[in-house]
Amino acid sequence: MIIQLEKNVKTSEIAQIKKTVNQIGYQTNAVKTQSGNFLIAVGKAEFDIRRIGQLPGIIDIHRVSDAYKLVSKKWRVYDTEIDLGDGVKIGRKQLSIIAGPCSIEDESQIKSTIEHLKANQISMMRGGVFKPRTSPYAFRGAGIEGLKLFSSYCKANNIKVVTEVMQVAQIEEMLPYVDVFQVGTRNAQNFNLLDALGKIDKAVMLKRGFSGTIDELLQAAEYVYSNGNEKIILCERGIRTFETSYRNTLDLNAVPILKEKSHLPVIVDPSHGVGLRNYIEPMALAAVMSGADGIIAEVHACPEKAASDGQQTLNYAEATQLYDRLRQTYHLKKSFNGW
Amino acid sequence: MIIQLEKNVKTSEIAQIKKTVNQIGYQTNAVKTQSGNFLIAVGKAEFDIRRIGQLPGIIDIHRVSDAYKLVSKKWRVYDTEIDLGDGVKIGRKQLSIIAGPCSIEDESQIKSTIEHLKANQISMMRGGVFKPRTSPYAFRGAGIEGLKLFSSYCKANNIKVVTEVMQVAQIEEMLPYVDVFQVGTRNAQNFNLLDALGKIDKAVMLKRGFSGTIDELLQAAEYVYSNGNEKIILCERGIRTFETSYRNTLDLNAVPILKEKSHLPVIVDPSHGVGLRNYIEPMALAAVMSGADGIIAEVHACPEKAASDGQQTLNYAEATQLYDRLRQTYHLKKSFNGW
Amino acid sequence: MIIQLEKNVKTSEIAQIKKTVNQIGYQTNAVKTQSGNFLIAVGKAEFDIRRIGQLPGIIDIHRVSDAYKLVSKKWRVYDTEIDLGDGVKIGRKQLSIIAGPCSIEDESQIKSTIEHLKANQISMMRGGVFKPRTSPYAFRGAGIEGLKLFSSYCKANNIKVVTEVMQVAQIEEMLPYVDVFQVGTRNAQNFNLLDALGKIDKAVMLKRGFSGTIDELLQAAEYVYSNGNEKIILCERGIRTFETSYRNTLDLNAVPILKEKSHLPVIVDPSHGVGLRNYIEPMALAAVMSGADGIIAEVHACPEKAASDGQQTLNYAEATQLYDRLRQTYHLKKSFNGW
Amino acid sequence: MIIQLEKNVKTSEIAQIKKTVNQIGYQTNAVKTQSGNFLIAVGKAEFDIRRIGQLPGIIDIHRVSDAYKLVSKKWRVYDTEIDLGDGVKIGRKQLSIIAGPCSIEDESQIKSTIEHLKANQISMMRGGVFKPRTSPYAFRGAGIEGLKLFSSYCKANNIKVVTEVMQVAQIEEMLPYVDVFQVGTRNAQNFNLLDALGKIDKAVMLKRGFSGTIDELLQAAEYVYSNGNEKIILCERGIRTFETSYRNTLDLNAVPILKEKSHLPVIVDPSHGVGLRNYIEPMALAAVMSGADGIIAEVHACPEKAASDGQQTLNYAEATQLYDRLRQTYHLKKSFNGW
Repeated sequence: MIIQLEKNVKTSEIAQIKKTVNQIGYQTNAVKTQSGNFLIAVGKAEFDIRRIGQLPGIIDIHRVSDAYKLVSKKWRVYDTEIDLGDGVKIGRKQLSIIAGPCSIEDESQIKSTIEHLKANQISMMRGGVFKPRTSPYAFRGAGIEGLKLFSSYCKANNIKVVTEVMQVAQIEEMLPYVDVFQVGTRNAQNFNLLDALGKIDKAVMLKRGFSGTIDELLQAAEYVYSNGNEKIILCERGIRTFETSYRNTLDLNAVPILKEKSHLPVIVDPSHGVGLRNYIEPMALAAVMSGADGIIAEVHACPEKAASDGQQTLNYAEATQLYDRLRQTYHLKKSFNGW
Repeated sequence: MIIQLEKNVKTSEIAQIKKTVNQIGYQTNAVKTQSGNFLIAVGKAEFDIRRIGQLPGIIDIHRVSDAYKLVSKKWRVYDTEIDLGDGVKIGRKQLSIIAGPCSIEDESQIKSTIEHLKANQISMMRGGVFKPRTSPYAFRGAGIEGLKLFSSYCKANNIKVVTEVMQVAQIEEMLPYVDVFQVGTRNAQNFNLLDALGKIDKAVMLKRGFSGTIDELLQAAEYVYSNGNEKIILCERGIRTFETSYRNTLDLNAVPILKEKSHLPVIVDPSHGVGLRNYIEPMALAAVMSGADGIIAEVHACPEKAASDGQQTLNYAEATQLYDRLRQTYHLKKSFNGW
Repeated sequence: MIIQLEKNVKTSEIAQIKKTVNQIGYQTNAVKTQSGNFLIAVGKAEFDIRRIGQLPGIIDIHRVSDAYKLVSKKWRVYDTEIDLGDGVKIGRKQLSIIAGPCSIEDESQIKSTIEHLKANQISMMRGGVFKPRTSPYAFRGAGIEGLKLFSSYCKANNIKVVTEVMQVAQIEEMLPYVDVFQVGTRNAQNFNLLDALGKIDKAVMLKRGFSGTIDELLQAAEYVYSNGNEKIILCERGIRTFETSYRNTLDLNAVPILKEKSHLPVIVDPSHGVGLRNYIEPMALAAVMSGADGIIAEVHACPEKAASDGQQTLNYAEATQLYDRLRQTYHLKKSFNGW
Repeated sequence: MIIQLEKNVKTSEIAQIKKTVNQIGYQTNAVKTQSGNFLIAVGKAEFDIRRIGQLPGIIDIHRVSDAYKLVSKKWRVYDTEIDLGDGVKIGRKQLSIIAGPCSIEDESQIKSTIEHLKANQISMMRGGVFKPRTSPYAFRGAGIEGLKLFSSYCKANNIKVVTEVMQVAQIEEMLPYVDVFQVGTRNAQNFNLLDALGKIDKAVMLKRGFSGTIDELLQAAEYVYSNGNEKIILCERGIRTFETSYRNTLDLNAVPILKEKSHLPVIVDPSHGVGLRNYIEPMALAAVMSGADGIIAEVHACPEKAASDGQQTLNYAEATQLYDRLRQTYHLKKSFNGW
């Protein structure tokens, strides 16, 4: 149950609400987000909602039986739009394209990528500087200095920076340089990281764990949201199954389900999903038709020479064709939605 | 290695070819299909292909290292089109839509479905009469009498019959009434059934096993093909994973991969895939964008009253909207392919 | 609900029972097995069981809410023992060991294996003559002539024959030569085969599908049982998961669960399970501790030269050590059970 | 390749070794652990090992082709024993039993558990104080104060503390109170946490990710080891599959494989594995027969009232029986190993 409180609710009113809610067998959690104050009540007993609804200090009450509450569409029925500033937005009747290399390598790579993005009217660039690697002996990324360089070129070109954060201790130093903090699949249930990202005022893109359920992704989002940060983007990037012909099983089934269960935008990552260059375009177009709000794709001037993930990275010509087809496909999809 | 033989190859020539092939350490399998005579040679040794190619009686030789041979696109590079007669075809630059109920119930249901299909220019009807059921106590279908009724109405309306065959013993009695024999997911590796279906001259639609790999699906097709029947349609219908929010994980990644590996047409079944009515349309449209040659969907006048699978079945209004959007989506996809 | 009928129940009594059961909203299925006559009633409504129990012609009634009924331990609480004749039994307080090659090759292989089994007091020999192969071009087994040879040596040595049946049409010709019909993992839901094996009076060993649930295995057993044949052995042989270090994930968790849910004996196949020679012994011993009634293992005089599955086959010395340790482990396990 | 350096190796000698190794196309990583100094060389080229082996400053060289190096048994062939002090050890020819509640609740619970452990000669107690919870609204554990209480009673009773650490920031405050830091399944690839735990001198128990491969578990261990900390325990606790009859698929196949691939001890957690009280004992005994060095089990005076995981927790009587049978089973297993 989500109890939305009045802006100027009195402490004594909150106490009275809590007491009443406890009496019916529910525990309360106070939540303050960018848009409001809430009490999230968790419990199982049946009760007459009017018993609470008439108490002073309450704007609205919603029963949400799912384990996630504030990210549920049962509470907020219209789609959330996330504003990154300078006219760049994600979600709600628009197609977002995020593109860039797996790893930030050097200045010339950044410049070349930005030129490619500008030529294609793309305003969000991905690029990893802290890389989670299965082996301790592999390349771990260009680090904070790489991020500063990445950010300086993006700012100069009005492009938003999307990059992965791996631990709580990195957030503070990254904060001035990042527009969208990406949480990787291996940290999908790193609850301390989620808590910490809930306390900042920057967008957070949550990748589904490679064996995470749709429900767990939504609960991870609830971690961020219940700490106050409403700017959350969900990202489907493939799950682990028995099939070995491709890298991961990109699970497009998750897209319409997430869109029905939650008001948050859903981005699809076909590069890590199917993970093979030839299949990125069909899977990206399919993602749009399944209902995705956008695509994040790996692009590199010369995929064969990329520091990581070359086999799933598009070159500029392939990417340019993809952007064009994504836009045509989204145009058709919008007409189906009556937008 | 596929050795294509001349039409009038002499027995002595075949003997000589076999002898030479055996000498280089390969075993041969003689295969006679609707379009030609072949020797399929299986082995691992390296050799000079000219040693065989110059022997009399041979039209052409293709090295195919995959476990499947005749269904591989490495051998036949253009897409196969399957002709069901009366202008109804599947594969190669056209969208095929197959629709109908999970189970054939009675005469009025058949008539009503056909009316719906005719109104939407659909010329293939699905409908199960032999139903594989997990429990021995569940409804097992209307049987051969149901099929005869189903077929008589379809013939009168120039609609092709698509229905599941469960065992070798059923093939003969079903033959006059069926246009496409469907092999269900539980029989995906029923090799005797595959052998037998390879000996008839009717189309066969092979569903991927719910835990079958893409490679296993292609080898199942090779069973049918190597027995002589080239009229094979592949069908992706969802795999088993850890996710429980939907019925099966419809694996659209398989579509572009199957299209690249094989010349056979690929149909997608979103009804058994995602398995929930609300998500059939987005997944069907996504399937088209992923490269599918067609869709098979469950449709019923009143899904709530269907004898089986109601929760994943569309009503006529939903289906009509789907057909229209499938066609628009395929139209766009064709333009991407330059067709 | 299982309604056990009196031996001499009258037709009119059955009609009255059916009528009453239908009135409470349940469908009935008449089942005649080797040990009795039953009506299996399937439905969901609540009712007073006394309403039925007092009708004439009924011995006993059991409510079984699972989808499987007659194989459930809720009905038959003591473990089933299957008697193969000549003192050879499976299940209930005894350890059964079945060993032999993957495929029957020739006379000398049969003789050598039997010698090895006799030396180790083993009275059940496995050996495939009809081999399900993923590729149509692979060796498909020695066939019915191989089975006759296999059977003749086994009969002469008082050893029971365990071999796989792949299709209904094979049953009749195999019948005189087989003691335990094995249904392979790919036929785990070949319902026609299960129906047909329910009509014979020979033991049937059902392998779990490589992506079959525990519940589906029990429903497959219900297919056989409800056709009349009570002589069923369940076999865990590994499931398909994302892990690639071994062949299949032998799922020992299934063993105590199957033993709790069903009265049927449970055999474990570590050869197809973990699938690598070095790990057969530890997994076989673990299986005994998990509660298995026996083990089926692949053994060959020279695994490197076996016609199939050599990498998971033990040689005679390894097998001899395994048998000894299995017996010691089972002895300890029995003491835990207080037997 | 692992290059073990002499204790008093000179800087100039290291420089020369690195230069030579780089010349053959390998990258070096300097690693200093509790027992020695190493250069880990990663690369693919073929070369004559004598070219490096004869350089001054080197004790020994081992080629290890796996992605993990220092945790491989190809390098260290004898099993590692981890000494927790006061005679408590894990690994190498001894059975370790760790028991205790899922979550530390209060003083009386700690005292009661310790009494139970002392009565059963068990010297390691598990108990969570920082709990990773899928929902942000669930109980998150008793925290550092709970740990201090837990530790004080354990120290007084000569019992070692095993508890989960969730993030880098917790390590320092936990350090005085913990004997074995447990890394949970959701943090199995939290590489920053692994790096940090590699820099302390306390034992670390790494749980396999619920969809982590055996190889990934070993690479996680390599993260800890290559940071200097050799005191690593591997823990199998169940993986995610399609089966829903139990909590997780406890993968005992992993045990003999981990024991063959690595010299590190392997502990099995049947409580989180199969996850249902009735099956804990059979799976624990099976784990011992599969080759496990020990068991970690959840125990509570009154499982029904436990703050978390009650359904998979044993009461004291059940646990006492389990300890006894584990010891008898291990005794038999040792005899098989010739110990």
